[in-house]
Amino acid sequence: MKKIILASNSPRRKEILENLNIKFDIISPDADEDSVDKALPAHLYVENLASIKAFAAVKKTALEKIVIGADTVVTLDDKFLLKPKGEEDAFNMLKSLSGRSHSVYTGICVVNSHTAQSCIAYEKTDVYFRKLSDDEIISYIKTGECMDKAGAYGIQGLGSIFIEKINGDYFNVVGLPVCRLAKILKEEFCVDIL
Amino acid sequence: MKKIILASNSPRRKEILENLNIKFDIISPDADEDSVDKALPAHLYVENLASIKAFAAVKKTALEKIVIGADTVVTLDDKFLLKPKGEEDAFNMLKSLSGRSHSVYTGICVVNSHTAQSCIAYEKTDVYFRKLSDDEIISYIKTGECMDKAGAYGIQGLGSIFIEKINGDYFNVVGLPVCRLAKILKEEFCVDIL
Repeated sequence: MKKIILASNSPRRKEILENLNIKFDIISPDADEDSVDKALPAHLYVENLASIKAFAAVKKTALEKIVIGADTVVTLDDKFLLKPKGEEDAFNMLKSLSGRSHSVYTGICVVNSHTAQSCIAYEKTDVYFRKLSDDEIISYIKTGECMDKAGAYGIQGLGSIFIEKINGDYFNVVGLPVCRLAKILKEEFCVDIL
Repeated sequence: MKKIILASNSPRRKEILENLNIKFDIISPDADEDSVDKALPAHLYVENLASIKAFAAVKKTALEKIVIGADTVVTLDDKFLLKPKGEEDAFNMLKSLSGRSHSVYTGICVVNSHTAQSCIAYEKTDVYFRKLSDDEIISYIKTGECMDKAGAYGIQGLGSIFIEKINGDYFNVVGLPVCRLAKILKEEFCVDIL
């Protein structure tokens, strides 16, 4: 019987948890992302949406489970960069990220589905892009990697060649701040990953 | 015909290059790691050993190839932390990393095996460990992840739950600074990853 539920449709979050040898099931959270005000500061926005996702999955859980919800946004000058709507949108996003830093926020919400014990937190990681040429941006868009990703890049794939450095948790950029999550699971929910 | 040669036995470097969709062959460099003075500053040490590895592979190459050598060291207070010699050594290393930062240096050397055109560089990434309990360290050692890794941890695996943040290129810690490498391949060797 798996005790942990990941309330996320993200294949990257699934991969991060698998990489930690955690046994878990996935429940698709069916959360309405538009229900949270995008005018909120990023750290509040991601915590808010992470908790909506976690509780949406809790509702679908009869047995006692530890449910993890998460949400990630990419921000540039306090503006959210979401998944690109098309190639032109992706081009403009990558052009705006070129030669400067932006921030990635991931909120996590962990809930015990029976006791309702819960814990919410977020992590912020700064990401520094090198200067990109238009040709590089076009070639990258052609690889197809960017279309399903907030900010139009994947740090774990080809996007890595654009990133000079980060300051913060790498996995927070991929979609789940593992150091923080492991600490919460251990200290608050007695779930030890090691 | 593959143009790129990776002069490294590291499965993690192989995985990083594969992840960038680069076609390459591997030549085991047969380099004598003891031939480089460990009293050198870390950035010189890794560049020196990266070049020894690259040229060792060049010697085995008849056709024209772009050969990549690399070497990574973990340093704490200017002391090198190598692969642990046993469980006790691993415990002492992880204990020394607990609750503070250390630095990881990777040197890369890229050589055209016919023209001898070559380029050497290094990257440094600072890694911040949270405070670890002795029990956590013992549990981590029991997973077996640490034994073949410099510094006795793997940032890409379970070791990630110890790492609060990094400052620098994530892949530099895994073993290959991809942003720097891609820039060198493109600008110096006309090899475009995208």
